[in-house]
Amino acid sequence: MTAKARRPIGVFDSGVGGLTVVRALMDRLPFEDIIYFGDTARVPYGVKSVATIRAFSRQIVEFLLQHEVKALVVACNTISAVALEQVRELAGDIPVIGVIEAGAQAAVKVSKNHEIGVIATSTTINSNAYAREIHRLMPDARVYSQACPLFVPLVEEGWVDHPVTRLTAEEYLKTVLEEHVDTLVLGCTHYPLIKPLLTEVTGGRVELVDSALTTAEATAEVLAGLNLLNPQRGAPEYRYYVTDIPLKFQTIGERFLGRSIRDLEMVKLG
Amino acid sequence: MTAKARRPIGVFDSGVGGLTVVRALMDRLPFEDIIYFGDTARVPYGVKSVATIRAFSRQIVEFLLQHEVKALVVACNTISAVALEQVRELAGDIPVIGVIEAGAQAAVKVSKNHEIGVIATSTTINSNAYAREIHRLMPDARVYSQACPLFVPLVEEGWVDHPVTRLTAEEYLKTVLEEHVDTLVLGCTHYPLIKPLLTEVTGGRVELVDSALTTAEATAEVLAGLNLLNPQRGAPEYRYYVTDIPLKFQTIGERFLGRSIRDLEMVKLG
Repeated sequence: MTAKARRPIGVFDSGVGGLTVVRALMDRLPFEDIIYFGDTARVPYGVKSVATIRAFSRQIVEFLLQHEVKALVVACNTISAVALEQVRELAGDIPVIGVIEAGAQAAVKVSKNHEIGVIATSTTINSNAYAREIHRLMPDARVYSQACPLFVPLVEEGWVDHPVTRLTAEEYLKTVLEEHVDTLVLGCTHYPLIKPLLTEVTGGRVELVDSALTTAEATAEVLAGLNLLNPQRGAPEYRYYVTDIPLKFQTIGERFLGRSIRDLEMVKLG
Repeated sequence: MTAKARRPIGVFDSGVGGLTVVRALMDRLPFEDIIYFGDTARVPYGVKSVATIRAFSRQIVEFLLQHEVKALVVACNTISAVALEQVRELAGDIPVIGVIEAGAQAAVKVSKNHEIGVIATSTTINSNAYAREIHRLMPDARVYSQACPLFVPLVEEGWVDHPVTRLTAEEYLKTVLEEHVDTLVLGCTHYPLIKPLLTEVTGGRVELVDSALTTAEATAEVLAGLNLLNPQRGAPEYRYYVTDIPLKFQTIGERFLGRSIRDLEMVKLG
């Protein structure tokens, strides 16, 4: 088993957002090598059709499988929402951890009154994937969903603590908060960056479930269960592949990752 | 010349925004057939690298040339900013009309004090294409540019008359307005939809140059000059090609076009 355990974890996303999951993985599993793939040339996925998202995801998964990863972490909520089964089929016996399953598990653990809110991109919300997964784990749960398409561009603009973002959050969360949810799932990898603002807007009355942290935790559990944790306790290797390197990539990427990005390579898909 | 004159005009954009240009063309040139191409699977371009935008633009132009268009209208400011020369090379003797040249021409006609503001996406602003073109036409002009990356997602969210959009506009326009510009170029095809709000925020003190209208006008002039206006005065044909048809495509598209979208086809590029 150890030869396989030394392989890297493959993490992928439609863009840079998944770097919040990489950051959580680095903290939780500091001895694991990680290969990240971000489809920055075609980002965002959250406003595109299911067929297109599946076609793009297939290309990314094939790329990561060629790099002999020992596990696949679907850091993108949109991909997890509409293409997880397809990723599992392509992955064969390689374990696949999806942000939505991880987030739903964490939400049902946290919620006391079984009233759970979910915020995410339009495609994730429309897929109903969070509600389905939460109901599977907690059949009497009531799930209130809200698409928040402006949060991603607001975070990418760097307005993580800005009156415009606060006003937007108040508008988006109004209906969900009226339903007395005690738990709110941040169903998009960009949202952890506005956690302080969301805590403020929700008046501290709800528990925020950060999908990056829960996914790192789920990944640790899966690797431990399969005896795939890296036995080598040396300095880990991190590699980043993207389909485009736009002007502000480094700045935005490092804001998500919380450290500098080295070993960055641009590749062409499709 | 008439056989060629009967061919359609090709209009293209990174997504649906260019439909504001199509709408202006339909009004200005009601007897022309139009083929529209929107790269909705890879939209937006405004945050991507120059190399990637050029590669994508080449694919679109080749597609439209295969459809025997008599002219190419680059409705996307970002493509006009960084790939116009390449489009002209590919087009050969087919005339190419770019939104930026058209917008710059209109701005220098309108401005009295030669202080001109330009708002657009990050890539368009960073390319400096508007400032360069305005200076070419009016060497003593002073150009003040401001990237407004949130306007596109705000328009696509439908918040065209919303406190969040007003607050965002106030923030973006603060510096430009302090410079006492008398003209403001709307350097993105999405912006005409928030023209009333921008008029309000600028207190009616500046003339707004709508790139959709100016591009339609420039196209009419070019076609007339080359004797390429369609001599047939029947009902025109409109065809729309896109690379993805997401959930809200019809709703958003028709908001831009101001009429229903028929003859829509999804194609694969690259």
